[in-house]
Amino acid sequence: MNKKENILIIGAGLSGSLLALRLAQRGYIVNLRESRPDLRITDISAGRSINLALSNRGINALKMVGILDKVLPLCIPMNGRMIHSVEEETFLSNYSGREGEYINSISREDLNTLLLNEADKFENISITFNNKCKKVDLENNIATFWDYKSESEEKVEATIIFGADGAGSSLRKSMFLKREMLFSYSQQYLKHGYKELSIPPSNNGNFRTFKNALHIWPRGSYMLIALPNLDGSFTVTLFLSHEEEEYNFKDLDSKEKLSTFFRNQFPDAFKLMPNLVEEFFDNPVGNLGTIKCEPWNYKGKTLLIGDAAHAIVPFYGQGMNASFEDVFILDTFIEKYKGDWSKIFFEYEKERKKDTDAIGDLAIENFYEMRDHVANHIFKEKRKIELVLEQKFSYFSKYSMVTFNENISYSDASIIGNAQDKALLNLIADGKLEGLNSEQIFAKVKQETLDIIDDDKVAKTMHH
Amino acid sequence: MNKKENILIIGAGLSGSLLALRLAQRGYIVNLRESRPDLRITDISAGRSINLALSNRGINALKMVGILDKVLPLCIPMNGRMIHSVEEETFLSNYSGREGEYINSISREDLNTLLLNEADKFENISITFNNKCKKVDLENNIATFWDYKSESEEKVEATIIFGADGAGSSLRKSMFLKREMLFSYSQQYLKHGYKELSIPPSNNGNFRTFKNALHIWPRGSYMLIALPNLDGSFTVTLFLSHEEEEYNFKDLDSKEKLSTFFRNQFPDAFKLMPNLVEEFFDNPVGNLGTIKCEPWNYKGKTLLIGDAAHAIVPFYGQGMNASFEDVFILDTFIEKYKGDWSKIFFEYEKERKKDTDAIGDLAIENFYEMRDHVANHIFKEKRKIELVLEQKFSYFSKYSMVTFNENISYSDASIIGNAQDKALLNLIADGKLEGLNSEQIFAKVKQETLDIIDDDKVAKTMHH
Repeated sequence: MNKKENILIIGAGLSGSLLALRLAQRGYIVNLRESRPDLRITDISAGRSINLALSNRGINALKMVGILDKVLPLCIPMNGRMIHSVEEETFLSNYSGREGEYINSISREDLNTLLLNEADKFENISITFNNKCKKVDLENNIATFWDYKSESEEKVEATIIFGADGAGSSLRKSMFLKREMLFSYSQQYLKHGYKELSIPPSNNGNFRTFKNALHIWPRGSYMLIALPNLDGSFTVTLFLSHEEEEYNFKDLDSKEKLSTFFRNQFPDAFKLMPNLVEEFFDNPVGNLGTIKCEPWNYKGKTLLIGDAAHAIVPFYGQGMNASFEDVFILDTFIEKYKGDWSKIFFEYEKERKKDTDAIGDLAIENFYEMRDHVANHIFKEKRKIELVLEQKFSYFSKYSMVTFNENISYSDASIIGNAQDKALLNLIADGKLEGLNSEQIFAKVKQETLDIIDDDKVAKTMHH
Repeated sequence: MNKKENILIIGAGLSGSLLALRLAQRGYIVNLRESRPDLRITDISAGRSINLALSNRGINALKMVGILDKVLPLCIPMNGRMIHSVEEETFLSNYSGREGEYINSISREDLNTLLLNEADKFENISITFNNKCKKVDLENNIATFWDYKSESEEKVEATIIFGADGAGSSLRKSMFLKREMLFSYSQQYLKHGYKELSIPPSNNGNFRTFKNALHIWPRGSYMLIALPNLDGSFTVTLFLSHEEEEYNFKDLDSKEKLSTFFRNQFPDAFKLMPNLVEEFFDNPVGNLGTIKCEPWNYKGKTLLIGDAAHAIVPFYGQGMNASFEDVFILDTFIEKYKGDWSKIFFEYEKERKKDTDAIGDLAIENFYEMRDHVANHIFKEKRKIELVLEQKFSYFSKYSMVTFNENISYSDASIIGNAQDKALLNLIADGKLEGLNSEQIFAKVKQETLDIIDDDKVAKTMHH
């Protein structure tokens, strides 16, 4: 293994800097280039989601590089969803029936800063900011960068090139344009967009509503959510149709309409948001897109990773966690096939692609689940049963498998979780769980789940 | 309704010329532009599939414009699949258990010629060949064409623009590049490609193998098919992995390897293909891609139709039929919302999108079914039962619903057909049909299918 290999990583966001850190720990020489200015000295928050939900898969990757102890102080545990009704009632729905299973609100900026600071400690990592990758010559492994400071172009050749350059990846674009690659690609937009708002801290710096929860105001075709920040504020996000449905971004075009909408639909939040009007008309509407593609690597010399390979919508809180897990899984193949990058990339993609496809789909499905949360009686009944099963038995809901069980892959969590959901919903709908004790319910759900998985398998033999 | 409206159709292939014909019949002034030369005076067959399978949905649209009587003489009925084993045994598997349900082999060139000749009869259609659309200005409804003859650019403004310009549509590309459109787009390539070959007629002009069938040599990871032509020849298509599997296009790089491969794998076909080596090394390898996108229309003034909106793989024989059905369905909305193009396009897309998505998926699934056809015992058992049920009862297999029942939408055919397949395969696998008579089997399959559809519905309430 030639540790002197020149590795170029395009993008010093969350996955790029984590990957750089890991490769540096393994002794590689890493050239890390980022299009934006250094976020540690410039405010570049605009347009990107401000805070994120860190859970087990992400934590696992941070453990791998040995910085978890520095990350945890940046985290605010969220034990469940705090549901807010139009009548201003609240109801806490725990994420798990087990103790110690919670997700963590963390600032993207804080975490990226930490990762860059850690990367700075390695002599074998060089970081260059303000360097925008324009394209990659895939045959010769040469990336062309535009330096915003010197206003000049530079070609960078590397043995291995990683595209960690996010949803708008230029490495991916170069693959898309390369006909011979037979590049499968999909971008799917939801008809909903989002806008970030805030609940500021109280005058004495405290949280204005319950700190340790992810707050949701589910309203059917739209919803509001809020995540806590270390300074006592909440980042609030409104998810709303771009231009369809009863309410949409296009129609909310005056202060009056906006205030009336919030006052009527989210009355308790409205009282906590003194800057609502200003923020609403200042901040951009973001789009919600899912990107999938294949292959991720070209001839074992370039690899897409993180959002560049699989951008997902935020509704499962797994975007960052999936990207961090990419680095963790990739590292197991780097360990296994030391130095044989072609083998590493091929085996990594074979293992990983089905899982990022699965979380992409799950994230879209969870959008519907979240926004309809309160309206659906049968869903509430299901959730109640699941919490009891999780408390008493070795039972894991789909949410638990995805969020708290890094040993179950996303694709397995999806297959088992969807079968389990189908079993439970049908058993409830058919009244087949009535009068049963929890042991009986557990046995029945388990059996029904296995039957569903089995029947699907037989049906699929026809197609594969 | 202003019949003087200027309608531009980009592409005079099968769907473009059928659409032109229908709009002309309704009195509109149609400007039809095609990038290729006139196929009636120039040979431009290279690179496009030579013959196609016309079935009910396509026939229905040809009836609508009143030219079915001119099309039928161009057709060769294919009653079923003629399966060829490695041991040179053949077995005819009918497409339906009912009389009169068959598909038709027809030459793309013959059909397109007929459609263009019919279009020529209308004074309100002007056809221009050698005009390549470069881009469409969506805000102002102006298409830019390059005229290959005069080597000059021309801008064409139209009230309504249709993109019937196939899988590589430039109208679609203009939509893709328009950020504000939030254009969802997906291109998925199979790892298999195809190459067209032929079985020439015998010396006295007869068919060298059974005329009235679609011949298949299914071999697991690859397959050969053959469709009859009016001149006594068969168009043969080899479907083979590009560069994976035991055999692939990349490795078949010498006459010896090619001949050995055909002699061993398709011995009976090999004997009928005197021009194999020449054709194989002359003809290009085609790609097999599925394209989906959304929305198809921009502000009710431009619309993608046919392959431009939904290119699919050929394994269900529905590419042309789906495109012709587009025109038929669109016409029902033109009739309903006379002159209100915005409403027409919006309602058409709402109705049609789910169906072309469904046939895109079904076509991919059928690839696996076709190539594994002989290997799978349980599949053969299922097919045998289905033919009996079709003979005796009002039973329609998935294939029958898709191919012979234009009154069942593709999406319904997919939902019902997949549930039915799942029911049948599981009942067979569990031995639950043993010893039953056909009435009992019919009742059991029907009940099981309904149960599956019902359970799926309950599970989906969570997500929509």
